[in-house]
Amino acid sequence: MAVPQMWETFVQFDSIEAIMNNKGLAKVGDNIVNLCYSLAKSLVLGYATGEKVRDSVLARAIRATAIYSRINKRTDAGKAADAYEAIIAYLWMTDAVSISSMAEILSKYLDINSRTSRKEEGALAAIAFQRLLEEHIGNLPR
Amino acid sequence: MAVPQMWETFVQFDSIEAIMNNKGLAKVGDNIVNLCYSLAKSLVLGYATGEKVRDSVLARAIRATAIYSRINKRTDAGKAADAYEAIIAYLWMTDAVSISSMAEILSKYLDINSRTSRKEEGALAAIAFQRLLEEHIGNLPR
Repeated sequence: MAVPQMWETFVQFDSIEAIMNNKGLAKVGDNIVNLCYSLAKSLVLGYATGEKVRDSVLARAIRATAIYSRINKRTDAGKAADAYEAIIAYLWMTDAVSISSMAEILSKYLDINSRTSRKEEGALAAIAFQRLLEEHIGNLPR
Repeated sequence: MAVPQMWETFVQFDSIEAIMNNKGLAKVGDNIVNLCYSLAKSLVLGYATGEKVRDSVLARAIRATAIYSRINKRTDAGKAADAYEAIIAYLWMTDAVSISSMAEILSKYLDINSRTSRKEEGALAAIAFQRLLEEHIGNLPR
């Protein structure tokens, strides 16, 4: 897969640890995650809406994947979420996945409606983000 | 231009006023705007970074375009920014413009560096968002 020239300088990493520790990528990824989740929620509910994804949701998602073994076990939720966001930025910038397809994957696991509680939605969102990451682990460096 | 089937239900509008008044589209667009600006800033500065765009910047941008005549003159900055964001969501969902190309357009006008003040950056950002919108006015309904 060819990395778009435009984003080439931002994705020069030879390990997954280096990606997960990159604060800049996490900042870009934060925006991507919120956009994809807003789009996924819009798809499921049938009307356009927006949402910020809580750190606790992304932390739960990454801790449920094999990538978790590459993070320091004492990492708090904020840092775990940053690691998740940095990975998403890396995947998008390397053209491994598009915004629309991330939204579509998330929406498959987001079985919510207008009566779903915030807590239930968080639990489903964590699973959705876990699956999204699992589908793309093969696109990350070792 | 064919609208992607995935987003079809969210972009059934026959006037620009209807788009600008759609709160859901504004919520999606808020995320798109922040992502594109973060990417544009990353391109200009040469390292990945993230940023939230202030309502005042988007309000200045839309007020400088011909579209402003279609908004109620008494609209406050928050509502003007919402209108801008809704338009961006519409343009992205109708496939009129990609995230990367929006970032690229914004970056052309964002002549900033590490010493640029917040105020100067805001002024340049407003012009960048104005130009982005002007380039795509032709893709909006009348």
